[in-house]
Amino acid sequence: MFKGIGASSGIAIGKALVLKKEELVVRSIVIDNIEEEKSKFQRALNLSKEQIESIKMKATEEQKSILDAHIMILEDPELISCVEEKISSKKLNAEAALEDALKNFIAIFESMDDEYMRERAADIRDVGQRMMTNLLGKEMLNLTELKEPVIIVAHDITPSDTAQMDKSKVLGFITDIGGRTSHSAIMARSMEIPAVVGLGSITEKVKTGDFIVFDGNEGTVIINPEAAVITSYEKSKERETLEKRELMKLVNRATVSKDEKVVELGANIGNPMDAEKANENGAEGIGLYRTEFLYMDRKTLPTEEEQFQAYRKVLEIMGKRPVVIRTLDIGGDKELPYMNLPKEMNPFLGYRAIRICLKEKDIFKTQLRALLRASVYGNLKIMYPMISSLEEIREANAMLEEVKRELEKEAINYASDIEVGIMIEIPAAAIISDLLAKEVDFFSIGTNDLVQYTTAVDRMNEKVSYLYNPFNPAVLRLIKLIIDNGHKAGIWVGMCGEAAGDKRLIPILLGMGLDEFSMSAGSILSARNQIQNLSYDKMKQAVDQVLAMNTAEVIEAFIEQYI
Amino acid sequence: MFKGIGASSGIAIGKALVLKKEELVVRSIVIDNIEEEKSKFQRALNLSKEQIESIKMKATEEQKSILDAHIMILEDPELISCVEEKISSKKLNAEAALEDALKNFIAIFESMDDEYMRERAADIRDVGQRMMTNLLGKEMLNLTELKEPVIIVAHDITPSDTAQMDKSKVLGFITDIGGRTSHSAIMARSMEIPAVVGLGSITEKVKTGDFIVFDGNEGTVIINPEAAVITSYEKSKERETLEKRELMKLVNRATVSKDEKVVELGANIGNPMDAEKANENGAEGIGLYRTEFLYMDRKTLPTEEEQFQAYRKVLEIMGKRPVVIRTLDIGGDKELPYMNLPKEMNPFLGYRAIRICLKEKDIFKTQLRALLRASVYGNLKIMYPMISSLEEIREANAMLEEVKRELEKEAINYASDIEVGIMIEIPAAAIISDLLAKEVDFFSIGTNDLVQYTTAVDRMNEKVSYLYNPFNPAVLRLIKLIIDNGHKAGIWVGMCGEAAGDKRLIPILLGMGLDEFSMSAGSILSARNQIQNLSYDKMKQAVDQVLAMNTAEVIEAFIEQYI
Repeated sequence: MFKGIGASSGIAIGKALVLKKEELVVRSIVIDNIEEEKSKFQRALNLSKEQIESIKMKATEEQKSILDAHIMILEDPELISCVEEKISSKKLNAEAALEDALKNFIAIFESMDDEYMRERAADIRDVGQRMMTNLLGKEMLNLTELKEPVIIVAHDITPSDTAQMDKSKVLGFITDIGGRTSHSAIMARSMEIPAVVGLGSITEKVKTGDFIVFDGNEGTVIINPEAAVITSYEKSKERETLEKRELMKLVNRATVSKDEKVVELGANIGNPMDAEKANENGAEGIGLYRTEFLYMDRKTLPTEEEQFQAYRKVLEIMGKRPVVIRTLDIGGDKELPYMNLPKEMNPFLGYRAIRICLKEKDIFKTQLRALLRASVYGNLKIMYPMISSLEEIREANAMLEEVKRELEKEAINYASDIEVGIMIEIPAAAIISDLLAKEVDFFSIGTNDLVQYTTAVDRMNEKVSYLYNPFNPAVLRLIKLIIDNGHKAGIWVGMCGEAAGDKRLIPILLGMGLDEFSMSAGSILSARNQIQNLSYDKMKQAVDQVLAMNTAEVIEAFIEQYI
Repeated sequence: MFKGIGASSGIAIGKALVLKKEELVVRSIVIDNIEEEKSKFQRALNLSKEQIESIKMKATEEQKSILDAHIMILEDPELISCVEEKISSKKLNAEAALEDALKNFIAIFESMDDEYMRERAADIRDVGQRMMTNLLGKEMLNLTELKEPVIIVAHDITPSDTAQMDKSKVLGFITDIGGRTSHSAIMARSMEIPAVVGLGSITEKVKTGDFIVFDGNEGTVIINPEAAVITSYEKSKERETLEKRELMKLVNRATVSKDEKVVELGANIGNPMDAEKANENGAEGIGLYRTEFLYMDRKTLPTEEEQFQAYRKVLEIMGKRPVVIRTLDIGGDKELPYMNLPKEMNPFLGYRAIRICLKEKDIFKTQLRALLRASVYGNLKIMYPMISSLEEIREANAMLEEVKRELEKEAINYASDIEVGIMIEIPAAAIISDLLAKEVDFFSIGTNDLVQYTTAVDRMNEKVSYLYNPFNPAVLRLIKLIIDNGHKAGIWVGMCGEAAGDKRLIPILLGMGLDEFSMSAGSILSARNQIQNLSYDKMKQAVDQVLAMNTAEVIEAFIEQYI
């Protein structure tokens, strides 16, 4: 049995197809004709671009945006001039020049602090492999014509690989490298194919034709298991399928506890396509639309029109149901290279989100204009992130009013009843939530950051991540305080951090009186099922007991009985 | 009038002495005799070392520790081999090789994130200047024989400069460069000489013999002012002197409000010498001994014996008065190169203080042993930093008990009544301070970090430092909560962050019932004076009013009337 990182849930059972990419051997040669070498390189570039454009035809929206990023790499003037410079000054052949240049670029990205940027090295490698294959006149791997259903075993799965896959023929995939946020993992989840990544050297241990079972939740992989093991996995898979089918019956139901307490289950989304998936999974609204993805993986700020179209699309998909759109939450671990944000010693305690928006007024006003213009197409709610004081809310609202006046002058319509709320993710905001509640229409608790700041722990930092715990009694007290303060002021309180979809926290949050739970679309139906089987009254009592406990360990043990 | 950074308080009036350091011109020459060049370099190294050792004779403790760091630079094998390598491989003359090597080293330190490390570049420059002067056979600037009292005007004042100064002849100094934490600023405060730093190009605007007045609080400098201005500054200076003399009468007094509320004023110290100064300034105890300075500016961990001697010395100086010694608070912005701590993306939310001590048990136990052994020499209290949960206290206390058992086995004495407390500087600890109070003998509020985490602001980050505000109502509520929870459990509550010495916060902290205020020694007497003129009862009422206010701005305006 091998243990990797469960990247996309589900059980897969079937025959292995091991993809071995051809080793590309590059020899360094001193060339005579510089111009000829340069145009050879240009032809490879163009061919690569054409290939990616043609893969894009069959790709999903998510794959398309990644493939666009790949085309951007092919057009990167720094990469191109770096290769051409090596050709002309060192008289290197194009292959050797490209190999050198790629090595440098990949090393730069791999050495970056930011996980997101490090993952970009994989994109460069993917594109680089394609350019090199084309330069050497070899054939790219073709996955379009799989004959029978297989489990794909590969060193890595690139976005361009997945875009070519026929989903009905791929039972799942397992890879040597990658983490939960690598493209291969994101793609697997987006295609709803089970996957385990980061298995080390699984490609050396499996041969094509081997029988494999694996569990994409637990990250376990078994090669040529005994019949009994296969049977047990088959049963699990069947149970999974049955459960899924049962859950699908809840798609159009309301979310009501055993004793008639009604709550709302929303989805967290990053782009309009996700809204479709939220729909299919029975979301009663969008609890968090992370607009920063509109700003990422591109070279300039998105225009008002581009934003308007994206917001409008989500609002139209959701119809009358509420859509909470969070204003730009950039900075921290999310960088925008074209904004030239300062390098910070502690980015999580730095210049980010509303702090940037209140300074970079043009950027913020463009987004507010796009939001207001889109508001007539659905049930829009606007949410400001990273609020730590009353003054920030007032300042942001003043800008919103300013933009409304501008639109009125231009005779552009906007909805008259847009709710405005804030994320509560900084301890200061939680502690003065009684004061803040008077200024807004709703709260949404951002647990990831709230836990992080309350316990002074960067959860990405493995040296201290053991201290990152939403069950820390201080965190639970703050959540209760926020909900109570919101209700006292007569506003609703939601949660859009990961905790809202956490099976262990849902009973407690229900008992605390949380009105809205926003989570990834895939968790909604099982959360609805869980809540249907809980008693609000009993959970209220459980909350009283929990709040009297003094360590996370004791609390976690106590909560186990409600799951 | 010029405006710089007020680095050391006090008014200075007098004639300028502009120190222009000789421009050292280095020519690059190809040499024949490598060995001769290397020994020339070695002679310059040795001469520099001798000079620094001789300056050390007359230096204060603080200067000595800096000069020791300079000697370490002279002995740095990397610097030496870098110069020698340039001599032998490039056949460069020693001067050019040294210049090259220094440039690299300075650039490396200047590019570091950590402010403390950046300031180390100034040390390398200081030592480098000396080595180069000696290599070129020139004379170093000599400040030992000033004939009349002067205000020194310089590009920068190095520690070796200040160590040579006759304090009675230096009225103050003003410099082109430097910040509040630069060595020149620290030295000025340590010598109690007024200073303004970071004035830009003041050395070009002032000539030797010009008449200057400046204010080390406000950072203002006036060159050749009118008679009326001089008179007004003279009056201010006189007032200052009188006030100082008046304050000195309070040295041996208790700290009592108008209506008989007694509080304790302690000092924050970094080494045994500071304890002497705390004594001279009427400290009723040491509220915070930052032991990390014992671990810094050296190549290895301090031994148990070294620590024992330092702790014992402070305890003996303070006699019966309490000495709160904080266990190692390293990490975050304070690095120890020899510990090879991981490079972190958000060091303030990372592996630091008690988190390190609970993992690196040997380091922690060595310190606890040294503390226990020293405890028989005075009134020791042990304090753990960065506590965020009950479990951490229990774990640390278990180790303390373990060390006690060890000492008992070895028949080594320790005091039986040592109080053990914690810093409250993480929001989680503040929020569950009712739970934590049951496990410890005292709390000390660390406002710097508490404000930082509560508002999610790195105060060193100038892009967001405007949000760093102890008057944020959330912070004031937490402080009140901590004090109340401590008192309910029957333990005393102190504060050792900068806020404890802040004139604007003292009235509020008094009204909240804070028991102990720990601050820099220089602030104690004026704080005592301020508290003597305040009514505890009235401040209690003021606190009620403040806690009903909703923004920092409103609160600050309200508090102004009590100063």
